[in-house]
Amino acid sequence: MSTYKAITLVKRPDDGKIGPHLFETKELEIPKLKDGQILVKQTYMSLDPAMLGWMSEDRESYIPPVELGDVMRSSGVGEVVESKNPDFTVGDKVMGMTGWSEYVLSDGAGFNKLQQGVTEEMALCVFALPGLTATTGLYNFGEPKEGETLVVTGAAGSVGSIVGQLAKADGLRVIGVVGSDDKANWIVNELGFDGAINYKTDDLQEKLAELTPDKVDVFFENTGGPIQQHIFNRMNTHGRIVVCGMIADYQSDSPAPGPNWIPLIKKRVNIRGFAMPDHWGEVPQLLEKLTPYVQQGKIKYRAHTIEGLDNAEKGLNMLFEGKNTGKMIVKL
Amino acid sequence: MSTYKAITLVKRPDDGKIGPHLFETKELEIPKLKDGQILVKQTYMSLDPAMLGWMSEDRESYIPPVELGDVMRSSGVGEVVESKNPDFTVGDKVMGMTGWSEYVLSDGAGFNKLQQGVTEEMALCVFALPGLTATTGLYNFGEPKEGETLVVTGAAGSVGSIVGQLAKADGLRVIGVVGSDDKANWIVNELGFDGAINYKTDDLQEKLAELTPDKVDVFFENTGGPIQQHIFNRMNTHGRIVVCGMIADYQSDSPAPGPNWIPLIKKRVNIRGFAMPDHWGEVPQLLEKLTPYVQQGKIKYRAHTIEGLDNAEKGLNMLFEGKNTGKMIVKL
Repeated sequence: MSTYKAITLVKRPDDGKIGPHLFETKELEIPKLKDGQILVKQTYMSLDPAMLGWMSEDRESYIPPVELGDVMRSSGVGEVVESKNPDFTVGDKVMGMTGWSEYVLSDGAGFNKLQQGVTEEMALCVFALPGLTATTGLYNFGEPKEGETLVVTGAAGSVGSIVGQLAKADGLRVIGVVGSDDKANWIVNELGFDGAINYKTDDLQEKLAELTPDKVDVFFENTGGPIQQHIFNRMNTHGRIVVCGMIADYQSDSPAPGPNWIPLIKKRVNIRGFAMPDHWGEVPQLLEKLTPYVQQGKIKYRAHTIEGLDNAEKGLNMLFEGKNTGKMIVKL
Repeated sequence: MSTYKAITLVKRPDDGKIGPHLFETKELEIPKLKDGQILVKQTYMSLDPAMLGWMSEDRESYIPPVELGDVMRSSGVGEVVESKNPDFTVGDKVMGMTGWSEYVLSDGAGFNKLQQGVTEEMALCVFALPGLTATTGLYNFGEPKEGETLVVTGAAGSVGSIVGQLAKADGLRVIGVVGSDDKANWIVNELGFDGAINYKTDDLQEKLAELTPDKVDVFFENTGGPIQQHIFNRMNTHGRIVVCGMIADYQSDSPAPGPNWIPLIKKRVNIRGFAMPDHWGEVPQLLEKLTPYVQQGKIKYRAHTIEGLDNAEKGLNMLFEGKNTGKMIVKL
């Protein structure tokens, strides 16, 4: 085969809705390598909520949008199948910014080899964007202390599940907010969270009060939605709110208002929005922090793997509908 | 005269409204001093928005409320008229937590002598709560940098006017939000602000855009109100929002909602609520920071002085109605 498939972005999701009409599949020729280049055959590709932002016109976001006509952006794992770069050998498993594409031509910059014993799924579930985002948000801004209470929304999601497990390992009381009983069971029984709130079926105020007798010191926000105000109301003095995601509002024409700021003064609360791309320079330190927890078996993960590049758009929609049961991954 | 007048709090402002029915004036006997004590005759008393919180039941606030039956809390300046404390001499002018009272008996703790050349009004306008609050908020949390743009609400107020002047002295572009043309004139023509917005008469969005061509890096919030969302919308990447006061909402049964948090992520903005009482330990450093600006004549102030302890309640209401034209002070 001398051609490969790649999916380009041809239209922006102006109404916040993702559909097949935004993309176009192309057959491209496998290029000849120049000196210093590698050819990576992608085997597993990550789908992330941030993609909606990358597809949108918004030039104020933390990464420039994907240009129309360009291959859609993503991270992924693959195998080096040709190399004219002395740093890479055919057969190396590498992770990097791959794009929605079967093959990727690169000079190797930004591609890192998987460590011994790290599978493709573990790489994308823990050591890629989700784990680095969780580690940055929790430790740079959440300042978790043993004995405190942390509430994380999107708790069964790729970032939330790792935030919660790190905090549990550090001796915090950890409550997760999820959207199904299956996810509630998973975070409590498999991941060891101290409690779960199903935002679709529980009485939010009552359940939150019951599960956080000492109120909330760290609020790690991945979703937005009505639960936000309830958690905000239960913040302790000097609490920290880390705003990592607002997936409930990304697709809305009129995002819900947030809480009034009076309690920020009364309780001297800090709200901090962050995005991982500001922190690429800290990755070595972040991995130093994260890796021991993984090695001690304290970080479990659940991949939700679907097959085929053609299904990437459907998988992305599952994320926004909350239908995924783990980190969304496309197996190519 | 062997008695003096003091005003006690006898009822809480449950509906957020301040009126004469909340207070009771008492005639008390001037006490005999024990060893170590001083008797201070109060000459100037400060009225501050924080008083509404001190009067309220809210046990979550940063200072415990005034107990019913106790003398209402305040800071003030006075003269030592009797002393059995070796650290104080009759005639010393001192500043401290005095209360709504003509005389204060104290062991001297928390009372500081006014520096040479510092008048009573300057002490209360600059070196007391307003100046310390402005200095803490701006430098601990606002992180102002030369060339940046700062917008401060309540800009003619006791805190806001100092925040703006400090930022101007540091080389920032400074825009103030005020509630009258007189205040707008004062901050621009007397204090040297780069621009003023009258939130009662200007088109907020248009005027703000016109006055902040490079958008906003530091938003120092003293008031709340509809201007908040507009300033929030104009925050730059890595902007800092310092929440010091929300006077527009303190008396409301249903405080207005705040901004949605999505922009916090996109722009990695930090919102920080703070209250000066957390920072009493830093007062020496704060004064070290503030005093040179005062000595260089860079901090002007305007006292709004009313006469007579009996008028304290009226003066407090003027604060909440925005009718004061400077730091509210009661001359006794």
